Amino acid sequence: MEFLVKIAREAEENTQVPAYPVSVEKVLKAVIATGDFWKIVDLCDEPLPLVAEILKLLNREGIVAFEGSQILLTEKGADFVKKLGIEPFVSHKCSCCNGRGVVIDGELKEAFEKFVEIQKNRPPAIHCYDQGYVTPENSFARVALADDRGDLRGKKICVLGDDDLMSIALALTGLPEKVTILEIDERLINFIKEVSDKYGLNIDARVHDLRQPLPKDVVGAYDTFFCDPPETVEAIKAFVGRGVATLKSERCAGYFGVTRRESSLDKWRKIQKVLLDMGLVITDLLHNFNEYVNWDYYEEMRGWQLTPVKEPPKEIWYKSTQFRVETVRGFKGFNEPIVGDIYNDAESSTT
Amino acid sequence: MEFLVKIAREAEENTQVPAYPVSVEKVLKAVIATGDFWKIVDLCDEPLPLVAEILKLLNREGIVAFEGSQILLTEKGADFVKKLGIEPFVSHKCSCCNGRGVVIDGELKEAFEKFVEIQKNRPPAIHCYDQGYVTPENSFARVALADDRGDLRGKKICVLGDDDLMSIALALTGLPEKVTILEIDERLINFIKEVSDKYGLNIDARVHDLRQPLPKDVVGAYDTFFCDPPETVEAIKAFVGRGVATLKSERCAGYFGVTRRESSLDKWRKIQKVLLDMGLVITDLLHNFNEYVNWDYYEEMRGWQLTPVKEPPKEIWYKSTQFRVETVRGFKGFNEPIVGDIYNDAESSTT
Repeated sequence: MEFLVKIAREAEENTQVPAYPVSVEKVLKAVIATGDFWKIVDLCDEPLPLVAEILKLLNREGIVAFEGSQILLTEKGADFVKKLGIEPFVSHKCSCCNGRGVVIDGELKEAFEKFVEIQKNRPPAIHCYDQGYVTPENSFARVALADDRGDLRGKKICVLGDDDLMSIALALTGLPEKVTILEIDERLINFIKEVSDKYGLNIDARVHDLRQPLPKDVVGAYDTFFCDPPETVEAIKAFVGRGVATLKSERCAGYFGVTRRESSLDKWRKIQKVLLDMGLVITDLLHNFNEYVNWDYYEEMRGWQLTPVKEPPKEIWYKSTQFRVETVRGFKGFNEPIVGDIYNDAESSTT
Repeated sequence: MEFLVKIAREAEENTQVPAYPVSVEKVLKAVIATGDFWKIVDLCDEPLPLVAEILKLLNREGIVAFEGSQILLTEKGADFVKKLGIEPFVSHKCSCCNGRGVVIDGELKEAFEKFVEIQKNRPPAIHCYDQGYVTPENSFARVALADDRGDLRGKKICVLGDDDLMSIALALTGLPEKVTILEIDERLINFIKEVSDKYGLNIDARVHDLRQPLPKDVVGAYDTFFCDPPETVEAIKAFVGRGVATLKSERCAGYFGVTRRESSLDKWRKIQKVLLDMGLVITDLLHNFNEYVNWDYYEEMRGWQLTPVKEPPKEIWYKSTQFRVETVRGFKGFNEPIVGDIYNDAESSTT
């Protein structure tokens, strides 16, 4: 136990990411299950820079070994894990809905099948816009969730940033009254426009840099928003705040993902405070609801420099918790210009 | 729309429960789907006293009619709903896991089967302790959730109040290091002790009034707690605070349910603030995870006086959202005596 405290303390000192004995324990638990760095990060649910640092320290202490692309427990490590009584990870995730609690059924099925075909021609994720998109099932599971919660049918929906092609997924159902998408990347807007024309989706697609205030007609005009903000407290404030600024009244809903891959729970707590302070209440928090397809630019991102072994991710490892929030009395969005770098902090790794 | 605002305003004035046009809209949506009062409360996810008042006002306005035990849209009501374009509720809930995201599989199956048999002899829920218990599947789905999140195996678990027989469910798996239960109701403690003896569960079961400070040896001694607090902000502070006081360190977990049946989202926001202020972060919020078996004392509870039609509930209508919280740096429990009535506010109905 003392050893776990020591490693946690040193890891925190070196990374400036809050670290606990349980963080070290989780890394050890994950190493029992897999030798793959990305899978270890996925299983521990601790920020990537912290996991990488803990692994390096455990390696120094002779607890884990790096062999080629693999991360392994040494003999000493295996004894240590046994002595501490560290139990392996167990999953009871429902395989029907992939743990999401909602399924793409009924009227959504046909639209989903169309979506699967359409998204095959999407532009690839690029680093300059910090892009990364979820699986098509995932985009549509969000549609199902929004429909289940009454935020889809007859609703005006604003999507702020659309790597995930949520605007197309939502509009394909034919259920919302209006879908607007604001996105900085012209390639995406052109793709969405083409699809919208071809399928008669009537999506209101506009090139817009979300660091700038919203177009006037978008402010206070929507029932529901979707966004996928970067993972700093300031960025959540700014980009979720933009989403909130699009909402027309109290008791409107917002959907976005927040990951543990780039956030400690201490940061999460600050993020949740920011949400409550905006006059939001959190109604749903769905762990690992969002699964991001591996992107091509991993060698350019900060996380790649930090990995103790250099092996590209093979399976999905970047996941996030789906948040649903609702506005209550006194809610207040954010529509000021966003200045300075609000994209990076000690816990981020994919920028 | 103006009409919805008017009804919401009047309903709020009469009940002192925050009401919004969307609250009225949700009641109308629910009346399209069912004539059963309890099912209407369930579907709308608004506090019972508010739903009852809105129905009475809509009845006065000739929008809904009360016919025997049924609540129906009048012809005028049907026209109104059509004019407003109010869409019916839709569900995409996964039927494999009942929307919970986790399933009772693997090693948990055998223990679950035992539990189903054991709980058949449980003492009935009684009003004086504000009791009500969830289905056996539900108790075990919580066990599966805790195991999935790493809060079960080798852990010391404290259960504060145990209508749901969580202590038995947890101990039957054989996975926790220790299970302690503190409960005011001697009937329950005796039942738990009998079962513990018969099945060799080694449950540490104690009669304890949770309004009093915790027994000394329980403070700061556990990894995980379970509780099911009453629904006022003060009660959440006090009883979840008690749970937090049992935890031994940072990054320990707590599980409890909070319902919408007795809470507006405005109250939920206050509750969430209280949780964050205690040094907790909310990691999971699982909507309608908990389903309470109908209890016998419904005619004694406040909600029964409020119902516009007098018909006992036939199906499960009282559900709650499962919260999972984790302690982070600076967390602080609550172990002072609890004085005065903290069980009731304008939104409560089952006390």
